[in-house]
Amino acid sequence: MTCPFDTAARIHALNTAPGRTDTAPPRAGGARYLGGFCAPPLETVRLALAGLGERSGVLIAQLAALPHAAVVGLCDINPDAVHASVAQTVEALPAPLPQFFSGPDAYTRMLDAVQPDAVIICTNWGTHAPMAIQAMEHGAHALVEVPLGNTLQELWRVVDTAERTQKHCMMLENCNYGRDELMFLNMVRQGLIGKLLHGEAAYIHDLRERQMLSGSAWRMAHFSERNGNLYPTHGLGPLAQYMSIARTEDTFDRIVSYSSPALGRAAFAEEKLYEDHEWNRADYNCGDINTSIIKTRLGRTILVQWDETSPRPYDRRNLIQGTHGTLAGFPTRAAGCGINDGSAWLASEAEVAELRLKYEHPLWKRLGAEALRHDPRGGMNYLLFARIIECLHHGLPLDQNVYEGALWSAVAPLTEKSVSEGGAPQLFPDFTRGAWSTTAPLGIVE
Amino acid sequence: MTCPFDTAARIHALNTAPGRTDTAPPRAGGARYLGGFCAPPLETVRLALAGLGERSGVLIAQLAALPHAAVVGLCDINPDAVHASVAQTVEALPAPLPQFFSGPDAYTRMLDAVQPDAVIICTNWGTHAPMAIQAMEHGAHALVEVPLGNTLQELWRVVDTAERTQKHCMMLENCNYGRDELMFLNMVRQGLIGKLLHGEAAYIHDLRERQMLSGSAWRMAHFSERNGNLYPTHGLGPLAQYMSIARTEDTFDRIVSYSSPALGRAAFAEEKLYEDHEWNRADYNCGDINTSIIKTRLGRTILVQWDETSPRPYDRRNLIQGTHGTLAGFPTRAAGCGINDGSAWLASEAEVAELRLKYEHPLWKRLGAEALRHDPRGGMNYLLFARIIECLHHGLPLDQNVYEGALWSAVAPLTEKSVSEGGAPQLFPDFTRGAWSTTAPLGIVE
Repeated sequence: MTCPFDTAARIHALNTAPGRTDTAPPRAGGARYLGGFCAPPLETVRLALAGLGERSGVLIAQLAALPHAAVVGLCDINPDAVHASVAQTVEALPAPLPQFFSGPDAYTRMLDAVQPDAVIICTNWGTHAPMAIQAMEHGAHALVEVPLGNTLQELWRVVDTAERTQKHCMMLENCNYGRDELMFLNMVRQGLIGKLLHGEAAYIHDLRERQMLSGSAWRMAHFSERNGNLYPTHGLGPLAQYMSIARTEDTFDRIVSYSSPALGRAAFAEEKLYEDHEWNRADYNCGDINTSIIKTRLGRTILVQWDETSPRPYDRRNLIQGTHGTLAGFPTRAAGCGINDGSAWLASEAEVAELRLKYEHPLWKRLGAEALRHDPRGGMNYLLFARIIECLHHGLPLDQNVYEGALWSAVAPLTEKSVSEGGAPQLFPDFTRGAWSTTAPLGIVE
Repeated sequence: MTCPFDTAARIHALNTAPGRTDTAPPRAGGARYLGGFCAPPLETVRLALAGLGERSGVLIAQLAALPHAAVVGLCDINPDAVHASVAQTVEALPAPLPQFFSGPDAYTRMLDAVQPDAVIICTNWGTHAPMAIQAMEHGAHALVEVPLGNTLQELWRVVDTAERTQKHCMMLENCNYGRDELMFLNMVRQGLIGKLLHGEAAYIHDLRERQMLSGSAWRMAHFSERNGNLYPTHGLGPLAQYMSIARTEDTFDRIVSYSSPALGRAAFAEEKLYEDHEWNRADYNCGDINTSIIKTRLGRTILVQWDETSPRPYDRRNLIQGTHGTLAGFPTRAAGCGINDGSAWLASEAEVAELRLKYEHPLWKRLGAEALRHDPRGGMNYLLFARIIECLHHGLPLDQNVYEGALWSAVAPLTEKSVSEGGAPQLFPDFTRGAWSTTAPLGIVE
């Protein structure tokens, strides 16, 4: 590994250290800006996967269904931890089957042996950035599960490595490909809600059972050692695209953040687990719900929330407000003088169906039915990879560049710092080193 | 008048001046803390009203319907501005009719002539604090429309005057008497959602037509001169009662605030008004939507929003979240392991009816039907005055003390200061001078 794996405690220490949050050295010689970067086209995109958890089986099947994609390598440090669905899926693939690697150096051996065009990194948070860096240095594009990194230092290293190696490094923010998110982007781009003022993003998802009662416990260290919004991008990514953040129109300026008390995990452990269980002996420092506000250069505001601890219904908010209307999710609804008279939400099944008739995103029209067939979670993950493979095949820019992944991920370290400083505003680093103001907004992909 | 009327520009200057926000001189000799204050009982509460706008007719009729209340005086500086409904209502009252006063000194003449037990102040924002102070100095209790004052200086003067004169000074936050707000308070007090973590309050109400197309234009100066959350208490008051803020359990510690760009009023004026209209020549400085976060001493968080400018459906949010569940408004809903399994909202008509069967507040059970009969806006205003008169008649503490009105109103000046300082946290003053920690929480009134 080029970079050490950061532990939750080390991440916390780095993210709450004194000093400004927005400073960066100048770009190194040989490095080039990747805002609208196109890599050479690939007839078939040879993919390798690192980290084989419970969703890997579905993912491998989705990738196998895509034209111009081939899964050539799979790895996990622990062969016993590989989810049963993986073997099932792989056995059903047409030959040649992907090579499988395991053990502590599995990732390095896989990169050396299969020389993939792109690596999909689905491991735990602490390893995302160093594994992405290693992939790019081995000549592969890096496709990285959220977040792209855990500290500003890591995020800068990822950006600098991408610029030096001239490789794509895309964070896999699948929520940007949700049906509603795509439709809202289309409505916003058509000017239906006027000039943009405010957005609201959240990841409210009660994951206590998965994290505390099943085997998937690695996030627990983060709840003990850190405090902030540690998982901001599922709600924030779509908002950032509506506002064309870091793409000419606007970018993030600063953020303030407060966490609630951390009470829910201890209460859950006490109710569900035996007295001496490690979750009954843990310290919980990460507030159950974190609430933050981003201020953009244009002065817009974005509320960002995160809660994986409370018994609340799933919610990403997905609210975008302009001078002439507001669109919101969970449940899907719209109101405004550009839409109705603004006094009540259009929210019934019939009203939403009518919105879809008028404003469905062209990408969903083209691939939505196929996505729903292959993707049990609403199609967004299939669309994400369909677009990545399509772009890599044709040598087009990806829909999200490395700077967007870094900027959206920066919310975690910046909220940790703001929380530790009593809510003091933290400045976002400009990972584009000024070039965001000349980077084209994401268009409406046909 | 004891205090000058502050203009919007002077309010802005005071609220963004350099310096700490939490400092106060010690209590003056003779002044006494009013946390659980009881005034001598009154057989009949003789009421005077100042400011006779479009809602005064309904209010006078509501007051006339209450036992132990009599409206003895009415005043407005401008007799031509008195709403037609007032004369209609007054004519229908039983004798003796209230005396009417008008002209620039109408208020002073009314206080001198009728010597009311309590004055209801329904004038514009700039006059609330000085008129409340004058009422108390004339020996009357002050019942003041929201906000209680516009600057920290005004709020301190109100508190100090109440303590010196030993008079009630209650801000008329009627939303604390909403049917759902009362039910939620009852559910929270019964421990149904566990330990409290987080709340969300809003006043989202598209008032552009009323403020820009009809005569009720005095708020427009505030939109030109100030920038923050200028009207926070309708959503915040109920949240503060759920959390027993400034009543032993907890109190507000600090706040951060950002406003969105101010675009909606100029756009509305351009669309609706002729080119030379004054609203097409005004500068709009107050962001269309303000988003703030309060941190409490116990570390809880409260999101507070305000928007009177955007074409959005009416919303006060009214969300209270604990370790075991969440209650929310607009629409009314509940979820949590104390309620269902937490994975979906109970929100259907039948489910909400079942919640009401179990958790309806006793005050609503006693007076709800009567309140709906007298109060076209859901009963909250009638309940508010029914309780005030009941408490004054029996010599009981009012449900909201002067410190709560001041603390909730302090959000406006503190957000103005935070906005002007790029989101820097502002400390709340402690209007109780430490005594909040011994002030009994509001109980469940039978």
